Amino acid sequence: MALSEKGFHVAVVGATGAVGQQMIQTLENREFPISKLTLLSSPRSAGSKVLFRGAEHTVQVAKPESFEGVDIALFSAGGSVSLELAPEAVKHGAIVVDNTSAFRMDENVPLVVPEVNEMDLHEHKGIIANPNCSTIQMVVALEPLRKQYGLNKIIVSTYQAVSGSGAAAVEELYEQTKAIVSNENYEPKILPVKSDKKHYQIAFNAIPQIDKFQENGFTYEEMKMINETKKIMHLPEIQVAATCVRLPVATGHSESLFVEVDQAGVTAQDVKNLLENAPGVVLQDDPENQLYPMPANCVGKNDVFVGRIRKDLDNEKGFHMWVVSDNLLKGAAWNSVQIAESLVKLGIVK
Amino acid sequence: MALSEKGFHVAVVGATGAVGQQMIQTLENREFPISKLTLLSSPRSAGSKVLFRGAEHTVQVAKPESFEGVDIALFSAGGSVSLELAPEAVKHGAIVVDNTSAFRMDENVPLVVPEVNEMDLHEHKGIIANPNCSTIQMVVALEPLRKQYGLNKIIVSTYQAVSGSGAAAVEELYEQTKAIVSNENYEPKILPVKSDKKHYQIAFNAIPQIDKFQENGFTYEEMKMINETKKIMHLPEIQVAATCVRLPVATGHSESLFVEVDQAGVTAQDVKNLLENAPGVVLQDDPENQLYPMPANCVGKNDVFVGRIRKDLDNEKGFHMWVVSDNLLKGAAWNSVQIAESLVKLGIVK
Repeated sequence: MALSEKGFHVAVVGATGAVGQQMIQTLENREFPISKLTLLSSPRSAGSKVLFRGAEHTVQVAKPESFEGVDIALFSAGGSVSLELAPEAVKHGAIVVDNTSAFRMDENVPLVVPEVNEMDLHEHKGIIANPNCSTIQMVVALEPLRKQYGLNKIIVSTYQAVSGSGAAAVEELYEQTKAIVSNENYEPKILPVKSDKKHYQIAFNAIPQIDKFQENGFTYEEMKMINETKKIMHLPEIQVAATCVRLPVATGHSESLFVEVDQAGVTAQDVKNLLENAPGVVLQDDPENQLYPMPANCVGKNDVFVGRIRKDLDNEKGFHMWVVSDNLLKGAAWNSVQIAESLVKLGIVK
Repeated sequence: MALSEKGFHVAVVGATGAVGQQMIQTLENREFPISKLTLLSSPRSAGSKVLFRGAEHTVQVAKPESFEGVDIALFSAGGSVSLELAPEAVKHGAIVVDNTSAFRMDENVPLVVPEVNEMDLHEHKGIIANPNCSTIQMVVALEPLRKQYGLNKIIVSTYQAVSGSGAAAVEELYEQTKAIVSNENYEPKILPVKSDKKHYQIAFNAIPQIDKFQENGFTYEEMKMINETKKIMHLPEIQVAATCVRLPVATGHSESLFVEVDQAGVTAQDVKNLLENAPGVVLQDDPENQLYPMPANCVGKNDVFVGRIRKDLDNEKGFHMWVVSDNLLKGAAWNSVQIAESLVKLGIVK
């Protein structure tokens, strides 16, 4: 984004976390028009120094008064912090972009992926929610199909990176891996879910649990993908099913998708042509030359990479594809900053 | 299997490979009735010494004459070796159990998973094919549903271990992992497919390619899962779709399955009850206690582990599940030895 004449007072809540750090970096990379940057955290992390545009900023303890004069507050410090402080920020006149799950299904809160439902921002009442990482990359890849052909079914199996569980989970993956290749022991303490009862080895393994289980046998992560997709795409009737799996990958979520469109007669080439020109999407689909998306290649990039597009062999309206994106960027920090850019572009913050 | 009064002359072709070694170990563990064991390989590996029941056996070069007097020949030395030598073994009176893809879709060759279609062994004309590893564990988990409720659709996304590409691929995974955690370089040379043009990092990555690509955009591995399932289950009309992905896991394939049954009114609990008593299946499904199958827990075991069984939230006949098994055992060596046991049990070899 080009520098505007006016700059905004932006706050980042959770400034020392994995996503918070990426938010600050993304604000700098995008040259977001900032007149003042306020970095906030828990008392434990307050006092840290963070560089932004070459100047040192000290992280302060997040309190209701911290939002005095703030135009846009980007929250990524956990659901309980958002529940407590996001309404305070709004009271002080800020627009909140919240990266936690606290408000996502609140009917008064727009849940926004700019490539899909940017116009929902006009409905905001102070808080805007940033969807779950695995949902965002999926709806970016599927919105062009919905618009062009209609969409009635999605079945997704995910291959998710550990950084979705925070920086400590990435450290656990690497330290545990080092221990195993050295024939040493390493007691799992964080994955699959820090606050759950049992912890399992992630190195050289695959864990079919992300977030805790609900009574219906689905995990909260799976239900987020199901419910958030319906809300973002304005398709309450669409059939969505998800199985979410954690892999020994540091960053970069992958998804194997089956989708059924409404319209008959669509070819795989039609879908490729559509996605080649879709916003936020990079098509990487050339089997002849072994070109397809992989998590190792997506890190540090804002795009959603799509490949392995095939028509189902039996279902005339069915398609398969493979969708990869950096879960800390498009899945979190970049989507939040992109929402802030849309707020400026649409004149919602002035 | 208890020792029978009669022992058989068994040959293992590819005795020094990853699967061949597991076959020899499995023959010993199962106390398969053996009067003579002939171990065969390429000239390059011939001369190696292998222990079987405490006695040293020297691996010999596989030639047409090697099968003189052999009752059962277990082949796992690559498709070209099977194409050349399996017919020679049959000419010499042996029954061949072939672990390669050379004869699987040959209509004169039964493709057998004993839990599913043991009776097809009666149709053999000398050669019996052992299915692809990822197909075997899937049909073991689904056969009870087919029998009880009927089955009309399968959509599978796999999470496959590198040992499916042989011992050198496992070494590549470990050496590459060690290099990466030490900030050193390691040039990929084997994965995803040794004979294909490009090779990619597997450590901390996921590669959506197993085997080469066909013109329809599916890989050969995916088409094996599709075609072999129809043949084994005697369901030429069933709809099967597969997306096959390689993970940084040494051994143990996982699969995320969506299936649609014919019968309405089936509950997830019905499916759990059915699989709890199914041959070759171990049910591991207790979300409350975070019990579900994982590759790290399946290594060295003959069973197919099933968990995460859920009814689809929209489709009255749809179910999701997670299926894990040791790809070198039930996926290869154990299924081959199990076929040999069935041949004895059914009196087909005498």
